[in-house]
Amino acid sequence: MLDLKDLSLNIPETTKPRVVIIGGGFGGINLAQKLPGKQFQVVMLDKQNYHGFWPLLYQVATAGLEADAIAEPLRKMFDEDYEDFHFRPVRVTSVNPATKTISTLIGDLSYDYLIIATGTKSNFFGNDQIKQNSFPLKKITDALNLRSQILQCFEKANMTTNAALRQSLLNIVIVGGGPTGVETAGALAEMRKHVLPGDYPGMDFTKMNIYLVEGLDRVLPPMSPESSKKTQAYLEKMGVIVKTKTLVESYDGEVVTFKGGEQIQTQTLVWAAGVAGATLPGIPQEIIQRGGRYPVNLFNQIEGYTDIFAIGDIAMMKSEKYPNGHPGVAQPAIQQGQHLAKNLKRLLAGQELQPFSYFDKGSLAIIGRARAVADLPGKITLGGIIAWFAWLFVHIYYLIGFRNKLVVLSNWLYRFFTYERGTRLIIRPFIRKGDKATETFMKQQAAD
Amino acid sequence: MLDLKDLSLNIPETTKPRVVIIGGGFGGINLAQKLPGKQFQVVMLDKQNYHGFWPLLYQVATAGLEADAIAEPLRKMFDEDYEDFHFRPVRVTSVNPATKTISTLIGDLSYDYLIIATGTKSNFFGNDQIKQNSFPLKKITDALNLRSQILQCFEKANMTTNAALRQSLLNIVIVGGGPTGVETAGALAEMRKHVLPGDYPGMDFTKMNIYLVEGLDRVLPPMSPESSKKTQAYLEKMGVIVKTKTLVESYDGEVVTFKGGEQIQTQTLVWAAGVAGATLPGIPQEIIQRGGRYPVNLFNQIEGYTDIFAIGDIAMMKSEKYPNGHPGVAQPAIQQGQHLAKNLKRLLAGQELQPFSYFDKGSLAIIGRARAVADLPGKITLGGIIAWFAWLFVHIYYLIGFRNKLVVLSNWLYRFFTYERGTRLIIRPFIRKGDKATETFMKQQAAD
Repeated sequence: MLDLKDLSLNIPETTKPRVVIIGGGFGGINLAQKLPGKQFQVVMLDKQNYHGFWPLLYQVATAGLEADAIAEPLRKMFDEDYEDFHFRPVRVTSVNPATKTISTLIGDLSYDYLIIATGTKSNFFGNDQIKQNSFPLKKITDALNLRSQILQCFEKANMTTNAALRQSLLNIVIVGGGPTGVETAGALAEMRKHVLPGDYPGMDFTKMNIYLVEGLDRVLPPMSPESSKKTQAYLEKMGVIVKTKTLVESYDGEVVTFKGGEQIQTQTLVWAAGVAGATLPGIPQEIIQRGGRYPVNLFNQIEGYTDIFAIGDIAMMKSEKYPNGHPGVAQPAIQQGQHLAKNLKRLLAGQELQPFSYFDKGSLAIIGRARAVADLPGKITLGGIIAWFAWLFVHIYYLIGFRNKLVVLSNWLYRFFTYERGTRLIIRPFIRKGDKATETFMKQQAAD
Repeated sequence: MLDLKDLSLNIPETTKPRVVIIGGGFGGINLAQKLPGKQFQVVMLDKQNYHGFWPLLYQVATAGLEADAIAEPLRKMFDEDYEDFHFRPVRVTSVNPATKTISTLIGDLSYDYLIIATGTKSNFFGNDQIKQNSFPLKKITDALNLRSQILQCFEKANMTTNAALRQSLLNIVIVGGGPTGVETAGALAEMRKHVLPGDYPGMDFTKMNIYLVEGLDRVLPPMSPESSKKTQAYLEKMGVIVKTKTLVESYDGEVVTFKGGEQIQTQTLVWAAGVAGATLPGIPQEIIQRGGRYPVNLFNQIEGYTDIFAIGDIAMMKSEKYPNGHPGVAQPAIQQGQHLAKNLKRLLAGQELQPFSYFDKGSLAIIGRARAVADLPGKITLGGIIAWFAWLFVHIYYLIGFRNKLVVLSNWLYRFFTYERGTRLIIRPFIRKGDKATETFMKQQAAD
């Protein structure tokens, strides 16, 4: 049998400076694409073998796009045209600044420059009960699980005469009023209107409730108040029940209890309420900032180091314009990755590093068909179909890979004209931890 | 917590005759599409909520198509336009002819006419060791697991200095020279030539061996000897090692041993060697034919019953022209489904049943880019690019759903011009039963 000790990172020896990049997200790939293999050896490590286009993840969860449409294999992005680039699909277990090495599951590797671009993971704020019972929406497997869960709830609702149970199967509570929560709620509302009545002719979908719960006083808190207001109006017009200033206290898999005592029976709690930086052992815990972010200077160097950098969501770069760091979206990661590539080349040439400055291209969120909001630079806010087209254009433009652009665009056009959501397959028997009845049921279903 | 006893089939009472169809494959859907809801109540039961287009399954396993492209949600196919049609995603546990009912995981249901269209499942001929260690290719989850396995083998081969282990990771043994085996071998050979060298610049893919093993004396035994010969020549030209008259004796997950003693070290044994009918408890075991098929008369009635029918792969209909039954492909199932719909209407009208007669439209198999074989009616055999275009046309024509046709066609064109295989994502940590090292590795990878 294959043994872990038979595996090793197998990175060729080199006389060039070795840049080790942990993470193949927006920051990591933009850095690696700009680092010339003639000057550096570049090693990228990621647990997954693909780059995910997370702004479209909610589409996978709501049966609008296939998983493969929003992900691109890293080896395809960095093919033989990238000289001296080495990808390994391995988890990094620690950083060892004293020896200038990192440790992985299958051995150590020395670095000259280390870039931590690990991004974020779901944050349950220490509430293990919620972690156990809710559906996060952060990874491709999360989205596929949530898709199966939602579809299975409809199927079960169609197979019960117990009215209370049916209602709890038809209640979907989305916690977190950021872009993921808003876009998921909007997509589910469209599905309720255009797809589900055809799928389940006997079922009364006026009883299906979509709740969007946000702790602050408005949805999309990072956007302008105008856009928040417009978004909430769009959502409510689509029949989403928006609850702001509402915090979740507990969720046992059956009943969500809010601070203040209000309760909703639901089988599906989507957790889009928070993320925390995916930090690594070896960098002192004391320096970690709010949200699990590493404090970096304007050159992306982590406090206390000159050869360890953090970029993207895991980096907390405070500046005059952004005293609390940059928003946790793709653009700062992309720009920091590209900027750091230039700085590493400057380092090699003995030149001074240049400070990073974020160019805000604006932000966008989609609520539904022809309904979107956009905050553009210069305090311009847009809504409706113009923002919707802007959203479509930007997302397809930034999507990695010609094939993916084609697939997403053709799906979009198809959906626009037919109102369909084509990928409503339950392809995996998702078993929620602790849900013994479903577990037994799915096992019996799958038995051969 | 949700309890199974809270669920029930929930099928409305009816005064019309109730047709219960078990299975949403080619036979089941073609039958249901032709049964008018004005005359019958139609209930379809399937463990999955989708119809799979299995002739393209090998494409999912070899990263050519996304899973969603070859499957169509049954509820989408049978929407509100189908009057009095009821789908339930539930496993049938037995047939009870004495009471004219079936039993499911969540309750019983009476029928007037029962149609068993359950198709086949992988057959390991009682060899539990092979069942445990090999990779079948029969379901969507099988294909996704095999895709992950193959990609993980390449990744591991790239991360070891142990030459014997690397070779065993680069050996892929496909057992079964039918269409699935041939098409998988061809697709892997193309991947080796056009995709993998770019993905793994340092790896020597001349060392990757693709074995295709068949027990009989030629590949594609149901096709003409000319097509078999052409297919083997194509495969060998593409570098596939074809071993006919070779039977597998054992496979422990590391070493496959053939009858006669020859051995090959491999981490990946693809099992495409046999299927058996997915029979149900309640129909007498004694009548079951070779390959787990129910004997049916020319009206598709199972021996001994007038109200229980079997169609497609699970049915063994012997006729003068087909003394051993029909080939286990889509066409007999499609035609029997359509024919049975007519017969059920005749039954209702008090007319005599009409015997089924199979119209052979020919058979096709694809080996690679512009390489295919076709046996047409009238003993015409085709090869090369003409057969390839025929294959493409037929498969896209029969593919369910406009969206799927579009996705598959655009994938195909994209691949034809770029040689790419876009969906090489490892999206699930497949753990082979018993492979503790991989299990530990994957768990550690996935740890949060």
